[in-house]
Amino acid sequence: MNWPQTVKVIDVTPRDGLQDAAGELTAEQKIQLCRDLYAAGVQSVEITAFVSPKWVPLMRDAETVALALRELSDTIALVPNQKGFERALATGVNAVTFVVSASPIHQRENLRMSLADSFEQFRRIAQMHASSQVRLRGAISCAFGSPFSTESITPETVADIACEYVDSGAVELSLADTVGVGTPQVIYDTILSVKQRVGHHVPITLHLHDRYELGLGNIVAALAAGVTVFETALAGLGGCPFVPDAPGNLDTEKVVRWLHLMGIHTGIDEHALSQIRKRLLKDLDASNGRAD
Amino acid sequence: MNWPQTVKVIDVTPRDGLQDAAGELTAEQKIQLCRDLYAAGVQSVEITAFVSPKWVPLMRDAETVALALRELSDTIALVPNQKGFERALATGVNAVTFVVSASPIHQRENLRMSLADSFEQFRRIAQMHASSQVRLRGAISCAFGSPFSTESITPETVADIACEYVDSGAVELSLADTVGVGTPQVIYDTILSVKQRVGHHVPITLHLHDRYELGLGNIVAALAAGVTVFETALAGLGGCPFVPDAPGNLDTEKVVRWLHLMGIHTGIDEHALSQIRKRLLKDLDASNGRAD
Repeated sequence: MNWPQTVKVIDVTPRDGLQDAAGELTAEQKIQLCRDLYAAGVQSVEITAFVSPKWVPLMRDAETVALALRELSDTIALVPNQKGFERALATGVNAVTFVVSASPIHQRENLRMSLADSFEQFRRIAQMHASSQVRLRGAISCAFGSPFSTESITPETVADIACEYVDSGAVELSLADTVGVGTPQVIYDTILSVKQRVGHHVPITLHLHDRYELGLGNIVAALAAGVTVFETALAGLGGCPFVPDAPGNLDTEKVVRWLHLMGIHTGIDEHALSQIRKRLLKDLDASNGRAD
Repeated sequence: MNWPQTVKVIDVTPRDGLQDAAGELTAEQKIQLCRDLYAAGVQSVEITAFVSPKWVPLMRDAETVALALRELSDTIALVPNQKGFERALATGVNAVTFVVSASPIHQRENLRMSLADSFEQFRRIAQMHASSQVRLRGAISCAFGSPFSTESITPETVADIACEYVDSGAVELSLADTVGVGTPQVIYDTILSVKQRVGHHVPITLHLHDRYELGLGNIVAALAAGVTVFETALAGLGGCPFVPDAPGNLDTEKVVRWLHLMGIHTGIDEHALSQIRKRLLKDLDASNGRAD
């Protein structure tokens, strides 16, 4: 067993954290939040999503935010389709997270196209931009369970999708427990199943939501399976708007604390993180006041 | 990876839980506590310790408690030496936990003899009672860290002691994080190191104390290492009187809840457990009132 000495924490607050929050930040506040996170030692931030403002109005300032953060390194933006990718590319983000779902129902509701159509777009993106510097990340929603009881997600399904991503040009994978139902066993087994199919050289990120407070156990299972990158959000904010009763993300502060207690380095200043969280919650709260 | 479908939880409240508690139960209350735990589905209870009443006065009723519970199966008593073993044997307990420490200082302070002297007594016990029905369990205190900064405990030290236990006649091992400093990595690596030395056929129990709230992560690491038996105490009570600022045990209710959330069976009724905990805390509290 090779336990990692260092883990990379990607903070997804500006994207996943804010998309389902009560309250809204201004573009300036989002930009400051991202800058503060990098200053606190977070290596990588998912700064926004290039999605339709019709479906996710909170992300209508994606260009403003991304353009303001051009000079930073290791910025990530989420894109659901080719159009989003083109918008993202124009802003100079360093990586894009393309997203498909292991749940056919969630794929349809969240992305409004079939898995085959999503991959058709992803392959086109990868081919057209093979020479660009932008890193293509392939995210799989619902990788550890479906929000819909009529479906069941197996490690093999997830491994198949992961394989199609890598064959199509993804250089990283992100497995997301969108529903927050993953247990340590399912997470471990799924990661191993994916690694066996795509090879151990493809970096895997884990994106956990926490319905049952099994977060620490899930992280340890993922570490044991060789994962060294985690996506988290401040105050455990977030959740997919297209999942009923979506639980929040794993809390960045908690995850960093756990990792430090385990003697694993993150490069992140816990105190600075806590200040950023307090400011964020205050800003969200104040915006609620405005909305009233 | 073979994740277990069933885990055995040994409740050690009547022994480890009470030995450092504020308040004291009567022998009758201890007996009822044990009966209630078995009735709630707990398979095995560490019912008492046959230690010197001079050092641990709270255990002076060991004979009364053990004799009253003769008819139950899978009862365990802790013994620190040959004298304690003889007393335990006379009461008809099903198993005894002999205890030594991986920390030389803790060994001396807790057991008042050297490790070599402890093993001398253990071998004598094992030889004299080879034909008896009582199961000999070998516990190793401080298996994942010493309370004293001048000492460091390695997985190899623990594996050596484990090996001496098994060679001397122990049929089970219990690795205890007496200080509560174990991390998932150290716990996993130590368990694997012990298994490699003693073979995979010797059952290993994990006895965790929780200083840093890494409990769930430590349990998952232990499950991943093949451990299927855990020792816990109600309300997280307990802690070694000979360890400075000893943290309490892992909480039985929390552990059972985590295991159930992971889909692992324990046979334990969570609601019954919660009732027993409430009653216990009330009884301890009332005894404090008596003492005032």
